[in-house]
Parts: sequence; structure tokens; C-alpha cells
Amino acid sequence: MRTAYHEDLRRISDQLVEMTRLAGSAMSRASTALLDADVRLAETVITADHEIDANREALDNLAIDLLARQNPVATDLRTVVTAMRMSADLERMGDLARHVAKVARLRYPDSAVPAELRGTIVQMSQVASRIVAKAGSVIASRDLAEAASLERDDDAMDDLHRELFARLADPDFNHGTQTAVDLTLVGRYYERFADHAVSVARRVTFLVTGDYDTVVDREDEEDAVLTS
Amino acid sequence: MRTAYHEDLRRISDQLVEMTRLAGSAMSRASTALLDADVRLAETVITADHEIDANREALDNLAIDLLARQNPVATDLRTVVTAMRMSADLERMGDLARHVAKVARLRYPDSAVPAELRGTIVQMSQVASRIVAKAGSVIASRDLAEAASLERDDDAMDDLHRELFARLADPDFNHGTQTAVDLTLVGRYYERFADHAVSVARRVTFLVTGDYDTVVDREDEEDAVLTS
Repeated sequence: MRTAYHEDLRRISDQLVEMTRLAGSAMSRASTALLDADVRLAETVITADHEIDANREALDNLAIDLLARQNPVATDLRTVVTAMRMSADLERMGDLARHVAKVARLRYPDSAVPAELRGTIVQMSQVASRIVAKAGSVIASRDLAEAASLERDDDAMDDLHRELFARLADPDFNHGTQTAVDLTLVGRYYERFADHAVSVARRVTFLVTGDYDTVVDREDEEDAVLTS
Repeated sequence: MRTAYHEDLRRISDQLVEMTRLAGSAMSRASTALLDADVRLAETVITADHEIDANREALDNLAIDLLARQNPVATDLRTVVTAMRMSADLERMGDLARHVAKVARLRYPDSAVPAELRGTIVQMSQVASRIVAKAGSVIASRDLAEAASLERDDDAMDDLHRELFARLADPDFNHGTQTAVDLTLVGRYYERFADHAVSVARRVTFLVTGDYDTVVDREDEEDAVLTS
């Protein structure tokens, strides 16, 4: 029974890593679609999101099945419950990538991103790629130092988000409010994507250390970007 | 044992209802703070959010304890797992209320809402109050007709959200991009608040009917407001 249990846990962990790969690929393609006004690429992100949703459902069913059959307690129980929470984070990251793709599709054949803001969006997309890749690596390795390093990536994302908002709110911004609305949403999608990646890393840290205080939504401890 | 189990379930259900009350109160006060530029009221929402977070933690600990002690299977297991998901929805609703309050605080002593958009924001806040109250009622009653009625409230929220975005993107909008950025975020906070309330109602429906297809995030099935 312990063997079956550990095999199930391994499968759950592998599926979580696979979800980080899917969410990362989705956000990477959505970013390219947004920056290059590539409507076909945007469509691939939008139509593929159901895959991430299906992965989550499969993972949750496996977790529930494991709870019913094996009745894990203590650390084992926390591991399974935490896996279900990570799958919720990762599914949401897929949704956020889809939202970015939808903005690209909506503005096609125009680009939603004015030339002067491209650099900021490119950097946000790079941080997003890095942070989701690290989340996958942390799930597999349970490396606490790497888990902690996601906090710094998220700080970088927050700085970029702040910079984006400052540029949008600048009285000299002359691309109209439609563009400001689009980029306000896009900025928030990237920021939340990074928050969920941090959440995944913190849940891993919690499983290793048992310290529940590490599991706080990034947004709960920082002033929202808007207010700083 | 069955009695202890049912007592635990009742406590979990009561705590979920209490969380809807707290989230509803928070969003209602945040809305007033936003519309009246009442920074003190905004502060009460921001500082009280930890109460909702603490409720979630207590509820989740109770649920995990129940899983360990009682090893529920089948429907009972689904009920406990679903309760943990509802607590996540409700905690997030509290966060969204706090975000609205932060916009109010940030713009004080000005109001973030221009006079011509007050009506739309007032209506969004009314729908938010109604939908979270109904979510609480559905948790307690498991009334499927009432659960279904939340979908119509959410449709009303989506219409208001669409209307808000159209007004912000109108070339005649002359309140500057800072206001457009603020209201884009506020609009999204109200919309997501309603989505999470629908999610709670759908999870109740799932528990009663066993039909998992009813549990889809509102955003996954509708085109985002932006794209329609």
C-alpha cells in the first residue's frame, strides 16, 4: 500500500510539473502573439487552454481517489491537499495566458502594445517565463533556495508592473484610453501569473518546513502595485 | 462517529456562510468608500481582511482534521474537498473588496469615480451585494433554483462591466488615463467578485447533483468582457 501511495504521489508531482510546462508555453506564446499581433498564435493559446483545465481535473481526481483509498494523515495528507491547491494555481495561470492572448486577438491586425511600451512588456513576459519554469523545477526538486528565488523574480515583476502603470498614467501618454485599458489588464495578468507561481513555490516550502506562515498570497503582504 | 462527522460538516457550512457575510460586508463598505472618497471606511476594509483570511485558515484546518480523523469517502469526501475550494473563493472575494478599498484610499481626497460613471459603479456594487448574499443563502439551503439564479446576476455584472469598458474606451472620455486605469481595475475586481460567487453556487450544485460539468469558472465559458 505504501508503494502504491508513493507511486500516486509521484504521478501527482509529475502532473503538476507538466502543468507548469503547459502554463509556461501558453504564456510565452500569448506574449509573442501580443507583441507581434499574431492572431493565429493567439488562437492556439485560446483553444489549448482546455488541456490545462483537463490536467487539473485529472490531477484532482487522482488526489481525491488517493484520499479515499489510502486515508493519508499528517504530512501525507497535507501533501495531497497542497497538490490540489497547486493545481488550482496552475490552472489559473493558464487562464491568465489565455486572457493575454485574447487581448492580442481583439486588437488584431493592430498591436495592443505601442512601440514605446514594448520593452516593458517584453521584460514582463521574460520574467513570466522564468518564474513558471522555476516553479516546475521547485515542484520536482523541493529545493528551498530555488523556491525562495521566485520571490526576487516576483519583485522584478512588481517593479515592471509599477513602471507600466506609471507610463500609462503619465499625462503625456497619448495612445488613448482604449490602449490604457488593454495594457492595465495585460499588466495585471502578468502580475497575477507571477503571484500564482510564487504561491506554488511557497506551498512546496510549506510541505518541506511545515511552516504555514509561508503560504500567503503575494498580494496579501505587499501593498498592491497601485498604492505604492 | 457519524454524529461527530455531521457536526463537523455543519460547522464547516456555518463558517462558509459567515465568510460570505464578511466578504459581502467588505465589498459593500469598499464600494461606499470608493464612491464617497471615504478613506476611513476604506481603512476598515483593508485592516479587516485578515479576519476573512483567518476564517479560511480555520475552516481548512477543520476540513483537513476531518479528513484525517473520519476518512470520508464518496460524497462525504467530495463535500469536504469542495468546502475547501469554496473557502478559497470566499477568501479571494475578500481580497477583491480590499483592492477596491485601496483604490479609494489611493485617490483620497479625490474620488476615483467621475460623476458620469457613478451610476454604473453603484449598480456593480449592488449586484455584488446581491450575489454574495445569495451565495451564502445557497450554501445554507442547497436550493438549486437559487443557485441557478446567480448566473443571471453574473450576466448583469458582465453587462455593467462591458458598459464601463465601453465608456472608458470612448474617444470622448476626458478624465485622463489615470482614471481609466483605476476604473479598469475596479471593474475587473467587481467582475471577478461575482465570478467567485457563481463558483460557490456551482460547487453547491455539484454536491447536490454530482455533475462535475457544472463546476467551471465563469471565465472559462464566456468570452472575456473585453472580447465581446
